[in-house]
Amino acid sequence: MSHHPDTPLLDKVQSPADLRSLTDSELKRLTGELRTEVISAVSETGGHLGAGLGVVELTVALHAVFDTPKDKLIWDVSHQCYPHKVLTGRRNRIRTLRQKGGLSGFTKRSESVFDPFGAAHSSTSISAALGFSVARDLGGQCDGGLGDAIAVIGDGSMSAGMAFEAMNNAGHLGKRLIVILNDNEMSIAPPTGALSSYLSRLYAEEPFQELKAAAKGAVSFLPEPFREGAKRAKDMLKGMTVGGTLFEQLGFSYLGPIDGHDLDQLLPVLRTVKARATGPILIHAITKKGKGYKPAETAADKGHGVSKFDVVTGKQAKAKSNAPSYTKVFAEALVQEAAEDSRVCAVTAAMPDGTGLGLMAERFPSRVFDVGIAEQHGVTFAAGLAAGGMKPFCAMYSTFLQRGYDQVVHDVAIQRLPVRFAIDRAGLVGADGATHAGAFDVAYMANLPGMVVMAAADEAELKHMVATAAAYDDGPIAFRYPRGEGVGVDMPERGQVLEIGKGRIVREGKGVAILSFGTRLNEVETACEALAAKGITPTVADARFAKPLDRDMILALAADHDALITIEEGAIGGFGSHVAQLLAEAGVFDTGLTYRSMVLPDTFIDQASPRDMYTVAGLNAEDIEAKVLSVMGVASLNSKQSR
Amino acid sequence: MSHHPDTPLLDKVQSPADLRSLTDSELKRLTGELRTEVISAVSETGGHLGAGLGVVELTVALHAVFDTPKDKLIWDVSHQCYPHKVLTGRRNRIRTLRQKGGLSGFTKRSESVFDPFGAAHSSTSISAALGFSVARDLGGQCDGGLGDAIAVIGDGSMSAGMAFEAMNNAGHLGKRLIVILNDNEMSIAPPTGALSSYLSRLYAEEPFQELKAAAKGAVSFLPEPFREGAKRAKDMLKGMTVGGTLFEQLGFSYLGPIDGHDLDQLLPVLRTVKARATGPILIHAITKKGKGYKPAETAADKGHGVSKFDVVTGKQAKAKSNAPSYTKVFAEALVQEAAEDSRVCAVTAAMPDGTGLGLMAERFPSRVFDVGIAEQHGVTFAAGLAAGGMKPFCAMYSTFLQRGYDQVVHDVAIQRLPVRFAIDRAGLVGADGATHAGAFDVAYMANLPGMVVMAAADEAELKHMVATAAAYDDGPIAFRYPRGEGVGVDMPERGQVLEIGKGRIVREGKGVAILSFGTRLNEVETACEALAAKGITPTVADARFAKPLDRDMILALAADHDALITIEEGAIGGFGSHVAQLLAEAGVFDTGLTYRSMVLPDTFIDQASPRDMYTVAGLNAEDIEAKVLSVMGVASLNSKQSR
Repeated sequence: MSHHPDTPLLDKVQSPADLRSLTDSELKRLTGELRTEVISAVSETGGHLGAGLGVVELTVALHAVFDTPKDKLIWDVSHQCYPHKVLTGRRNRIRTLRQKGGLSGFTKRSESVFDPFGAAHSSTSISAALGFSVARDLGGQCDGGLGDAIAVIGDGSMSAGMAFEAMNNAGHLGKRLIVILNDNEMSIAPPTGALSSYLSRLYAEEPFQELKAAAKGAVSFLPEPFREGAKRAKDMLKGMTVGGTLFEQLGFSYLGPIDGHDLDQLLPVLRTVKARATGPILIHAITKKGKGYKPAETAADKGHGVSKFDVVTGKQAKAKSNAPSYTKVFAEALVQEAAEDSRVCAVTAAMPDGTGLGLMAERFPSRVFDVGIAEQHGVTFAAGLAAGGMKPFCAMYSTFLQRGYDQVVHDVAIQRLPVRFAIDRAGLVGADGATHAGAFDVAYMANLPGMVVMAAADEAELKHMVATAAAYDDGPIAFRYPRGEGVGVDMPERGQVLEIGKGRIVREGKGVAILSFGTRLNEVETACEALAAKGITPTVADARFAKPLDRDMILALAADHDALITIEEGAIGGFGSHVAQLLAEAGVFDTGLTYRSMVLPDTFIDQASPRDMYTVAGLNAEDIEAKVLSVMGVASLNSKQSR
Repeated sequence: MSHHPDTPLLDKVQSPADLRSLTDSELKRLTGELRTEVISAVSETGGHLGAGLGVVELTVALHAVFDTPKDKLIWDVSHQCYPHKVLTGRRNRIRTLRQKGGLSGFTKRSESVFDPFGAAHSSTSISAALGFSVARDLGGQCDGGLGDAIAVIGDGSMSAGMAFEAMNNAGHLGKRLIVILNDNEMSIAPPTGALSSYLSRLYAEEPFQELKAAAKGAVSFLPEPFREGAKRAKDMLKGMTVGGTLFEQLGFSYLGPIDGHDLDQLLPVLRTVKARATGPILIHAITKKGKGYKPAETAADKGHGVSKFDVVTGKQAKAKSNAPSYTKVFAEALVQEAAEDSRVCAVTAAMPDGTGLGLMAERFPSRVFDVGIAEQHGVTFAAGLAAGGMKPFCAMYSTFLQRGYDQVVHDVAIQRLPVRFAIDRAGLVGADGATHAGAFDVAYMANLPGMVVMAAADEAELKHMVATAAAYDDGPIAFRYPRGEGVGVDMPERGQVLEIGKGRIVREGKGVAILSFGTRLNEVETACEALAAKGITPTVADARFAKPLDRDMILALAADHDALITIEEGAIGGFGSHVAQLLAEAGVFDTGLTYRSMVLPDTFIDQASPRDMYTVAGLNAEDIEAKVLSVMGVASLNSKQSR
């Protein structure tokens, strides 16, 4: 399956400086070799293919024209950075992309001086680039020097409020700053929102060069009412011909649209901009996601995220699993609820497939809302739906819900509105690494007054929690579940409504009690099997709720055991902290309890398989077994001493 | 000082329904009475004056034309809602505004059916209104029924990304939805950003009626190149004459600008919109903050937030304090640091005065950045500045930093960039109530790997922490401090750089140790004085750091005392949770420790004085005293039992 293509020109490029001695026609040839190399590499590693293929020419042109790494090139989201990594001294490791110990699938400051600002979430690049621009003008110093700042941002990312905030601020400050709008009409899902229609209208128009010329001197042709305000009319006319009024209204010069795969357009435009730009400028480049690789171009998602694949056929190798993914279980359970209650509706932010809502959209298209990359709006929109008597499920990844945190507090929790938060990708997520980890949601949700917080221990539990959330109307409720496949338990026909704040005993034992919140339960069970061989039989409970806690169950576990261990797939401040607070207030620690709380460690964990990441985190079966053995040693020592 | 003005017409208005039987000229007279009533009420209560005065006519016109409460009127931020409260059955309580047990200074769902969606943070209204619109079309049912949804949003609020996200989504969905842009060129601070320049350009132009007429048929006057694309040209021309292209590009019909104080414009426009609107429509109304009350109109902040005042002179009664406010201490300390290090710079989000950065802007204007209502961008912009070698202080209120939470995680913490977070208004804030409480920051910051988190115990400590943050370059660092005056301690000439992760013993005692994080220290001291009279002398420590914890100090406190109490001005999951985790992992609980963690209770606390709010929270001196007595009872009981 491995193809190492012939790449004579690329072989000579050790760093972007080497590009600057190539002729334009050599650069053109180089783009072909670079594209082949990226396809070949991703066929071995899997990863984000379409985005990188869409910016091969842009990557070559930017590095050829600008003086990287002194000029700061910032890739928004940065899943399109593979060609950039190949050109910036990382070609020898490109076949380790997204693997444990290998290159990150995103830009990363610690990886290269050519990655001045890492990313993975969208829409941050203009803000960061503006920071570099301002730092440059204030005399800031950093690795590689400080020249121009260039943000490359997709049309989907541009629709996020954060990008608008950055444009608005950049337009106001007026610093030299280059934004390249990489417009492929395709973020992860098909684009949504009025901005995307606007962009479509823009590139239905003629390219800028012709009209720009036509615009000159055209003022005199204007009818009388407009001729008087000459400057204003000229400004308006400029907008009218070039078409970029929205960006110009935000204080940017607008250039475009140009063909982002045509070096004959890209190189002169970039050279002109480099030579002449004074303030903020936006270059609107039209590209095609998956460009130059048919299987990607024709795929529905344009090869957004792929597994390893065969280069010739494009066929992806996908490990088959019998257990359904949590995402799918959620989606199917939600469809069931929606079929029975017309008030059930759903909101997501540019992740209809990632969250499984696409399934519901097929059945109930009028009740599913993809708001685009707009988590802030999405959460408050859901709050409005709830206030209007609907039963909204707000389905987002844990890491992206962080974008709407204030809205969860201010619009949902304070008003006690019954928004149902379906938090996907909770815990460690694998190849996407630290930026996508769902580490903090339990802590940041469970300390909000009135919020109910659940975690599913397996796929059947998830189904119950969807039913529970649908039935619960007294305030906001959240349930979290991980990426990946379930454990293969029997699935109930219909989700049961769980009693709020009640956990369940999974196995009765003695000595040590393990109180699990979420899908570590399976690891706990594995640990218990190993422990059983040593004659140790812990009690195991599934908390189900981090809030409200099952006070009776937890105090009984504490009273009836020498040691209590909590485990969760989240950072400190969450489930274990709530249990500790309960135990402290109830006076359980006064007379001694061997209590331990297993949480994610205080470090961002690099990409690897989820299992390997949990090994680093110390939350796998063997870690649980070791923890039980260690607390039993402690507990027996203490009981001997007190005898 | 109390003036109860003559208000014969207003006296007859028990609810908005009464407005609908008044003639237009009666409505005009009513606006005068309503304005007088609001001025009179706020003169007694203090509060947000200018914003309400700016929307008196708008409030009357909206309630007169629309069918509230069936039609959902949503005030953005809602500090302009006092006239609305007077008209919606709350006049008899209007003189309790922002007082303990009185009316909230903001809209609040639990207060009235006329407040369909509460607010206090900005830019949420369009999202919420869209939620109601969609719920209506899906058959949702709620109190009062479900008709039109109308959002009233200021120009400052409109500059936030969240509002853009909502416009983008609303434009895409195309539902009937009314947005009123209340453009007073003034959020709290003078407006910033390219959007505000754009709006200025809009109302430098002629009002819409004339040009709208002129635009008809003008297509034929256009020069040849434009005539061909007839529809497009017409669209462009519409934008050109009416001026609202930016909003139209987002899918809204645009009407304006109109004079928001002229009922002769407001009433017909609103009636036309009510009768004819099919999709989303934006009405651009120009208003004047503080309108109709000279002292407010002429004040620099247009009477944004005022104390009680004399209606005739406009002179505000302000309680004098000898101690400087924390905000001022921060600002002066920052100026000192900036004077010595040209890399020190500062970012805030529409709060230059609230955060004290105005002071630094006077001395070092090029190094202070007010990004507008744009916390997401502000945080990442600061990250970019840090990556560019600057030393940015990102100064925001605790409650608003929630808006930039993902950016703190993704752009700052993961990249370990040395952004300094100055977190003002930490803890309970008084009259602004639950929506402005800074309750969650310790929890949501301290669980981020690599984040240093400090809290100042008094104003001198704050000065040290500013110096510490300026000196610290290894990663992100945050320090929090409350609203209001310091305790009056001697101020050092210069802040000292504190050792990272080291607390301090404030008083040596025995039996019980109290470990304080933040300004509850003063209450702890007061409690200790009362306890001393009873012969009880707790040890008191100031933790200074929630992260990294002073492990040695905390374990020594645990070892040397029968009981340990932590106290902080924050919700569960923060400082106390980190201490509990440390104690658990170190095995301290194994053999027993009477440990208690005093945190904010699990409830949103309504407005009152900060002191009264802390009484509700149970975190004042008397609560601390009671907690010490209770744990001593427990501790002595346990020590008797084990004897």
